[in-house]
Amino acid sequence: MKTSSLLLATTRETPSDAVVASHQLMIRAGMIRPLAGGLYNWLPMGLRVLRKVEAIIRQEMNRAGAQELLMPVVQPLELWEESGRDETMGAEMLRFTDRHDRSFVLGPTHEEVITDIVRKEIRSYKQLPVNFYQVQTKFRDERRPRFGVMRSREFIMKDAYSFHLSQESLQETYDTMFEAYNRIFTRIGFEYRAVQADTGAIGGDGSHEFHVLAESGEDDIAICSNSDYAANVELAEALAPRGTRPEASEELEKVATPDTHSIEEVSSLLQVKKKKTVKTLLVQGATEGAPVIALVVRGDHELNELKAEKHPLVASPLTMASDAEIQAAAGCSAGSIGPVNLNIPVLVDRTAANSSDFICGANEDGFHYKGANWERDAQITEIVDLRNVQKGDPSACGQGKLEIYKGIEVGHIFQLGNKYSEALNATVQNENSRAQVLEMGCYGIGVTRIVAAAIEQNHDDRGIIWPDAIAPFQVCIVPMQMHKSPRVAEAAQKIYDELMEQGIDVLFDDRSERPGVMFSDMDLIGIPHRIVIGERGLDNGMIEYKYRRDEKPQDIAEDEFMAFLMQQLAK
Amino acid sequence: MKTSSLLLATTRETPSDAVVASHQLMIRAGMIRPLAGGLYNWLPMGLRVLRKVEAIIRQEMNRAGAQELLMPVVQPLELWEESGRDETMGAEMLRFTDRHDRSFVLGPTHEEVITDIVRKEIRSYKQLPVNFYQVQTKFRDERRPRFGVMRSREFIMKDAYSFHLSQESLQETYDTMFEAYNRIFTRIGFEYRAVQADTGAIGGDGSHEFHVLAESGEDDIAICSNSDYAANVELAEALAPRGTRPEASEELEKVATPDTHSIEEVSSLLQVKKKKTVKTLLVQGATEGAPVIALVVRGDHELNELKAEKHPLVASPLTMASDAEIQAAAGCSAGSIGPVNLNIPVLVDRTAANSSDFICGANEDGFHYKGANWERDAQITEIVDLRNVQKGDPSACGQGKLEIYKGIEVGHIFQLGNKYSEALNATVQNENSRAQVLEMGCYGIGVTRIVAAAIEQNHDDRGIIWPDAIAPFQVCIVPMQMHKSPRVAEAAQKIYDELMEQGIDVLFDDRSERPGVMFSDMDLIGIPHRIVIGERGLDNGMIEYKYRRDEKPQDIAEDEFMAFLMQQLAK
Repeated sequence: MKTSSLLLATTRETPSDAVVASHQLMIRAGMIRPLAGGLYNWLPMGLRVLRKVEAIIRQEMNRAGAQELLMPVVQPLELWEESGRDETMGAEMLRFTDRHDRSFVLGPTHEEVITDIVRKEIRSYKQLPVNFYQVQTKFRDERRPRFGVMRSREFIMKDAYSFHLSQESLQETYDTMFEAYNRIFTRIGFEYRAVQADTGAIGGDGSHEFHVLAESGEDDIAICSNSDYAANVELAEALAPRGTRPEASEELEKVATPDTHSIEEVSSLLQVKKKKTVKTLLVQGATEGAPVIALVVRGDHELNELKAEKHPLVASPLTMASDAEIQAAAGCSAGSIGPVNLNIPVLVDRTAANSSDFICGANEDGFHYKGANWERDAQITEIVDLRNVQKGDPSACGQGKLEIYKGIEVGHIFQLGNKYSEALNATVQNENSRAQVLEMGCYGIGVTRIVAAAIEQNHDDRGIIWPDAIAPFQVCIVPMQMHKSPRVAEAAQKIYDELMEQGIDVLFDDRSERPGVMFSDMDLIGIPHRIVIGERGLDNGMIEYKYRRDEKPQDIAEDEFMAFLMQQLAK
Repeated sequence: MKTSSLLLATTRETPSDAVVASHQLMIRAGMIRPLAGGLYNWLPMGLRVLRKVEAIIRQEMNRAGAQELLMPVVQPLELWEESGRDETMGAEMLRFTDRHDRSFVLGPTHEEVITDIVRKEIRSYKQLPVNFYQVQTKFRDERRPRFGVMRSREFIMKDAYSFHLSQESLQETYDTMFEAYNRIFTRIGFEYRAVQADTGAIGGDGSHEFHVLAESGEDDIAICSNSDYAANVELAEALAPRGTRPEASEELEKVATPDTHSIEEVSSLLQVKKKKTVKTLLVQGATEGAPVIALVVRGDHELNELKAEKHPLVASPLTMASDAEIQAAAGCSAGSIGPVNLNIPVLVDRTAANSSDFICGANEDGFHYKGANWERDAQITEIVDLRNVQKGDPSACGQGKLEIYKGIEVGHIFQLGNKYSEALNATVQNENSRAQVLEMGCYGIGVTRIVAAAIEQNHDDRGIIWPDAIAPFQVCIVPMQMHKSPRVAEAAQKIYDELMEQGIDVLFDDRSERPGVMFSDMDLIGIPHRIVIGERGLDNGMIEYKYRRDEKPQDIAEDEFMAFLMQQLAK
């Protein structure tokens, strides 16, 4: 394609609400334009990238045996009432009534619709397993849409749903999808990790998120330095420290700590490292017999709320005890709680449980204990994993230490079990002619988000650096002063024709702009391979080539150029 | 693909609301399933057809120099207020508010959004002309969605919008789109006509509809028997009869016609053909000076409301005069009006104006005139084209007579002029650096509707007969008793592998069903080329081939089969 027949909407203006690189660069490179909050037009340059991403996903989904179908954007609310999610989805699900006052929603996801299809169309176990997918527009009325297409309201997802007679069959398709996702993200050219994930509100067992590693990511991911192990920090297991707890060597001593409430203040006042202290938090209990529960982690550690609220004694969602509840249970305010002489259940983190001679609140405002020791001074109800992992922690896989990275979630696979199939009564006749509730899995990829994530991972000061597989064009041809030099125009056209014939996606910049303008536009748009043709080069029988990431261009002899370029493209 | 890995959702049940063949057959062949009124799931078999239609459209739009982009389904209401269409769209445009109480619509079309993009992105005449298109989901809240995907609420359209500095440039792109549409519908395999059309509420000059000819069509189309001329009956010009009006030969005579009100009753009572009578209708006028206007057409003709309301004396939309107004203007009731001694403007249809010695109402209840003649007995204010054309009328192209066909509108191209660009102030700097309002064209194709129209035009008692270009599969292989005959299985697999290698879309029916079930499923789904492999054939070195439209199959020698099939596919 030639730039003269393409909307080249590059701009130097960065909108004020664009705080992440991908949002800024997609606007500046003319890939998207805002229509309203969280709604974007995809201009021709951006759509080319989106379509390449879609094509890779379709190929790999088909290869993995999934069947493509297409469900409507608009769904009847009734189905959501049937599954019970009408209530749990909240304001993010946009609802409206049609001209006949019937209630509908803009589909934020399609579990209900696909389960409705399957309960009607799949009659016998002989038709199982099945795996259906679509590439389709979804809408979530985010309270605060942001980061451009990274967290927009209208977006494109690939969502797949599989149905099975048994958990084994579900696991098999789950594994196939796991592989397909790895193929997809590898083909796109991502540095990414498959991460053990929480199943959240959607329920069920077994879930992986696929995260693109990028500094701007919203999620913290713990990655083993020596293995494939990766987990969302929220979910990564913090192992118990090696070795047994050191013996107590100090006496319990109450010390005055006036006006110190935080771990920072206490450790600073007493001139000790934070790891010598423990932090005690009171939360609401799940049972009548124990309305308040104490959670203890080491002073340098962070409580992991997700882990805490999974404990049967702890109310879910995790709810901090009120000042009055704290006063009643511990006889002090929040900054002075400690496990010594505390008459409520005390759940102690694995690492904190290995501390001895530690410092903790004395359950008396203005006082802490030094030299506190478990068993001798304070009782442990149960030792549990309660904290977030940190950089340097041993990995749960046993093969190395953890690094903490930032990640952008681009895919998520779930084993849903029979959450939806039970609610919507999706059954088939099994081999014994009995109705059996189906097992279900679901597999999502944020198609529009992938485009933004690719930019977050691949850009520099000059603009985007597309991975070859999803670049809007693989190659650009930039002729120097073409409109004054028929020789340059002819040479550029010849290479253009040859590349088009080879099926290469090539952009021919035929504008009569200054070279600097053309170079900076092509760098901004992020086309990976650049060819420059000028009088001086042709005088020497040379054509200039530059890979977008390279510092400097190289001159290649004209007659070797096509072979050289093909080699570069095949890399 | 093998049927074992495809959702083959054929069914014998025809839903009671499915009154047209395409709706019935799309359900029975397992192509679509209803989700709610006017909302359909596209099952894998149907989606294959839809995707092929989309691919043909994209290829031809790209070939014609249009650029693909993608605009959101959800649009801010503000843009519709700016264009003024907020008020004219009515209940068909679904509106809602988001969680922050801002007003949005589900886009029924995208003129406003594209004009908003263009007014921001196109700065100079040098960037013109441009033509943008998308293949995208739209929503129209039809009062009575019906005929399956033919008139659904959520549907897929290809909509294109072009922008120009001049009418000449608009005409050029319009002509290019006209050609592109002809290529698209020819490639799909339609029997269709490009039809001169009314521009309706959207405004502007110059418009063609593309109609697929099918008995179930909702539109009446006048087609010349000897040329390409075709026009919507609403718009087709009824030429003046050749020759001058015969001289008056009878005296004006008032006859009693008690209890006769309609043309049928009068002609029956007086024993004359309907064409000897004229029909006089009173309608509201457009001016204060003439609040009621008489319209006269021959008794055997139908008033064309669109033509009538375009006359400057006639109120638009056309409104019949009330009984009181008729009594005041003509002194009688509606069944007895005639042009004799009528003191209001009388607009006479070209053919009626050529009648002499005709019968008409006497403006006195219970009486008609015989032997009435223009000028002598009744005055003509103006002779105009007021009637619908009929079968046998001379074509306006002057090259033949008209036939009336039923058509299904699948495409529509419009010259919008500056309706939207003016309302939204879409201007560019012209060569003289002055701001100039853009000219605009728009070009739509009903993508989902094409699938239904193809079935309306191509089906029989056994099911769908797909045109090759959009068939879900071009070829099916039906092996006889494959599960009992390894020899049949092997031969079928061999042909399957060969066809797959050639890139042919082939469906291998590997179910262990009775041959009759497999045959009727493949006929219902409508796969054009059927290959049957059985023991008996193989004994004789023969493979059976049948084209979907053929009465009987033919046996082809095994070693000549592939060459034969390729020839059939190339037809």
